Amino acid sequence: MTTRPLILNAVEMSTAGHLAFGLWRRHAPAARDYTDVDYWVELGRVLEDGGFDALFLADALGQLDTYERSADRALTDAVQTPLDDPLLVVSAIAAATSTLGIGVTVSTTYEQPYLLARKFTTLDHLTRGRIGWNIVTSQLDSAARNLGLERQLPHDRRYELAQEFLDVTYKLWEGSWDDGAVVKDRERGVYADPSKVHAIGHSGEYFSVPSAHLSEPSAQRTPVLFQAGSSPRGRAFAARNAEVVFVAGIEPVALRRNIEEIRRLAALEGRGPGAIRFIGLVTVIADATDEAARAKLRDYQRYRSVEGSIAHFSAITGIDWGQYDLDAPLEYIETESNRSILASLTKDVPGAAWTLRDVFASPDGVGGYGRPIVGSGATVAGRLEELADESGLDGFNIAGAVAIEDYRAFGEHVTPVLAERGRVSEKAPGRTLREALSGASSPLLPADHPAARYRGAFAGRPSAAPPLAAVAGTEG
Amino acid sequence: MTTRPLILNAVEMSTAGHLAFGLWRRHAPAARDYTDVDYWVELGRVLEDGGFDALFLADALGQLDTYERSADRALTDAVQTPLDDPLLVVSAIAAATSTLGIGVTVSTTYEQPYLLARKFTTLDHLTRGRIGWNIVTSQLDSAARNLGLERQLPHDRRYELAQEFLDVTYKLWEGSWDDGAVVKDRERGVYADPSKVHAIGHSGEYFSVPSAHLSEPSAQRTPVLFQAGSSPRGRAFAARNAEVVFVAGIEPVALRRNIEEIRRLAALEGRGPGAIRFIGLVTVIADATDEAARAKLRDYQRYRSVEGSIAHFSAITGIDWGQYDLDAPLEYIETESNRSILASLTKDVPGAAWTLRDVFASPDGVGGYGRPIVGSGATVAGRLEELADESGLDGFNIAGAVAIEDYRAFGEHVTPVLAERGRVSEKAPGRTLREALSGASSPLLPADHPAARYRGAFAGRPSAAPPLAAVAGTEG
Repeated sequence: MTTRPLILNAVEMSTAGHLAFGLWRRHAPAARDYTDVDYWVELGRVLEDGGFDALFLADALGQLDTYERSADRALTDAVQTPLDDPLLVVSAIAAATSTLGIGVTVSTTYEQPYLLARKFTTLDHLTRGRIGWNIVTSQLDSAARNLGLERQLPHDRRYELAQEFLDVTYKLWEGSWDDGAVVKDRERGVYADPSKVHAIGHSGEYFSVPSAHLSEPSAQRTPVLFQAGSSPRGRAFAARNAEVVFVAGIEPVALRRNIEEIRRLAALEGRGPGAIRFIGLVTVIADATDEAARAKLRDYQRYRSVEGSIAHFSAITGIDWGQYDLDAPLEYIETESNRSILASLTKDVPGAAWTLRDVFASPDGVGGYGRPIVGSGATVAGRLEELADESGLDGFNIAGAVAIEDYRAFGEHVTPVLAERGRVSEKAPGRTLREALSGASSPLLPADHPAARYRGAFAGRPSAAPPLAAVAGTEG
Repeated sequence: MTTRPLILNAVEMSTAGHLAFGLWRRHAPAARDYTDVDYWVELGRVLEDGGFDALFLADALGQLDTYERSADRALTDAVQTPLDDPLLVVSAIAAATSTLGIGVTVSTTYEQPYLLARKFTTLDHLTRGRIGWNIVTSQLDSAARNLGLERQLPHDRRYELAQEFLDVTYKLWEGSWDDGAVVKDRERGVYADPSKVHAIGHSGEYFSVPSAHLSEPSAQRTPVLFQAGSSPRGRAFAARNAEVVFVAGIEPVALRRNIEEIRRLAALEGRGPGAIRFIGLVTVIADATDEAARAKLRDYQRYRSVEGSIAHFSAITGIDWGQYDLDAPLEYIETESNRSILASLTKDVPGAAWTLRDVFASPDGVGGYGRPIVGSGATVAGRLEELADESGLDGFNIAGAVAIEDYRAFGEHVTPVLAERGRVSEKAPGRTLREALSGASSPLLPADHPAARYRGAFAGRPSAAPPLAAVAGTEG
């Protein structure tokens, strides 16, 4: 087993309570005001100083209203509610940092690819090549019904639409503007050479995008592509498109099996063995000693919200778990299907108990899912190394229970130990997020990625699409 | 005539060449890199230090490809092409400033109101109440055909859709969350009081938005509303909704007539006499003396692009003016309608000549439209005061020909003179953009604005909309 640096991301959301539900109460009154730009600037600086590779911003487009068929619990306990737009904080963080990558979740279901492509190019410009995109296809009915859809698109059609969406953005990012198109020749008065800018002429089942990309190319062209699909269709989508995959669970054998399966699928797509990095999700509570960290955990537990956790679980499973008694044993949960969902949530946890309360108020937990890694820098670093080595994970999304405090503690106690062991990557201003995460020496997608086929694919085409009326043969 | 402060906005676009076409060549190589976040941070600081009230960011959603039926000229001369997303630079500027307002153009034609509402609430949070929205309905066919529309919606239907779009956002901003809904009570564990958060239940011709607003209220709730409609339908729309109206032209009598007409229409909507502020567009070239400013103008003229100006004019009129000889007199322009468009462009300019070149390469011009105001601080200040007093304008959108340089010169030479004469508003951190522009003492829309009717309108409704399946009476 060679020692390689671990990818260290922080994972946040533009809301008062992201994954450790109820813990917003633990924050000092002004400590986590996600509506304040200074909060994001400080978070960015703490992460960059603490050796993190990237800040990852999750998102959702609807209220969490499955639990008790109401949003009341989500509002009361600040369960990812209220929720601001994550794309809009990026430039403030970018201006305050120089190496930290920033990944943002955006759904393909409610955006136009022509405009989404411009957004990520703009952010890649403003971050100087440090932007990533977590591609999601959206899962909340409460989003669909506010956004012009009668209901959620069926799962498989969402992925079909998402693939065409991606193909459009690949064409815009990789094929529309040739290398060297932007010349900025002040003498001749040529900003861009129009013979090197091409209309992409896309006409598909879901989208029609005849024109050239509005924005000039950025350092990475295509943002670093993240994905978290775990369904069969989602895995195939990730194997085809993703550069970084978020995998669920913390049980090493299951993780390794999942990783190997996605690698196998990626190979079938013609992608090289190192084409995808895999990232697990952990909550870390670190302090100077194991003792101090455990005391911090006990303090945190005073604030956690079991109902808030169940409200979130209800939204992501689409099942109102509020209908069950918190302390009813598993066998009293109605329907085989619901029992197996609950059982699957605890299957990675040896000796896990079998009531809703056992899952969401375990003596090791801190609100939300799973058990945090708690301890001194050496303890946490050891556990992360072990988990990565046993599972094949390339790194972690680290969720702070109490942001910014927990990230500062990680940087203070864990990062120095990991660095000593060669587990923290060297950071260099000017290096893109893609280079930092993949170790490659190019800021661009590798040649075996499906987007690469569009490089040069539109050579010879003009810079503008013909007017639609002419295309359709009708009058203007 | 009482002396009142003038509203001083800078107007920019996230592109190399906004309104003074060809002038990008005049910039020092690194001086105006709109793709660099540091450019925007510096611009924000220069404007705030220079006494400006706000930075205004224009946008378009398509290439300029009407001229010679190609985007080649726009690309070569950097005529608003390439173009990045203006919303995404706001937080970087917000973090670097404390009083400067920031207005951004966003079209109602290609966004979902549910998501647009969250974007502006997020930006109002991040700017601490300094955000404004320039409502446009989009005019470029090249945008429409990349964004899922066969062609542009008819003009009147665009305004009909825009009004429903606004009504949805008004409901979300003003009516969905009551005052006092966000309590952040750490003892009781209540972030938001769900009895004060209401689903809006909007079901209209263009949009269905049953749910509550995703974001908690911001300082201004509704962003300051800007509009620039000049068609009859556009004027009625502005009279109903806008707090600040951009009016075209520089001829005082015509301006005053236009302003009075919109005031009259606003009164018919039940809005008070001071409900709308009016802003004109000027390009200013200032220096220590009239001599030095005129020398600067002559230097700038070496870089201007007549063809670039005509490419822009072609896109906004939808007519390919590249078909005409630059030096053909007006009477040789084909069609009465085209002759009158060109004539209208020069009607405010006494003694204007009558060829395309005369319009776009006049000895007083600097690229683009009209004639800049050129001179010492006293000369420019005098001209601005005169123009405001004669026309009834409340202030100006000031377009720099060479940004950031021209804004710095304005702050250095013009602002001190205007300040001496009581024409520059006092700036105070913590004051919202609405308070700064209107002089009112509340950050919220006044009671006579149509959005105000939605305050309290949803009291008693639950925090979540019923699931769609239940509403429609069909199966889930």
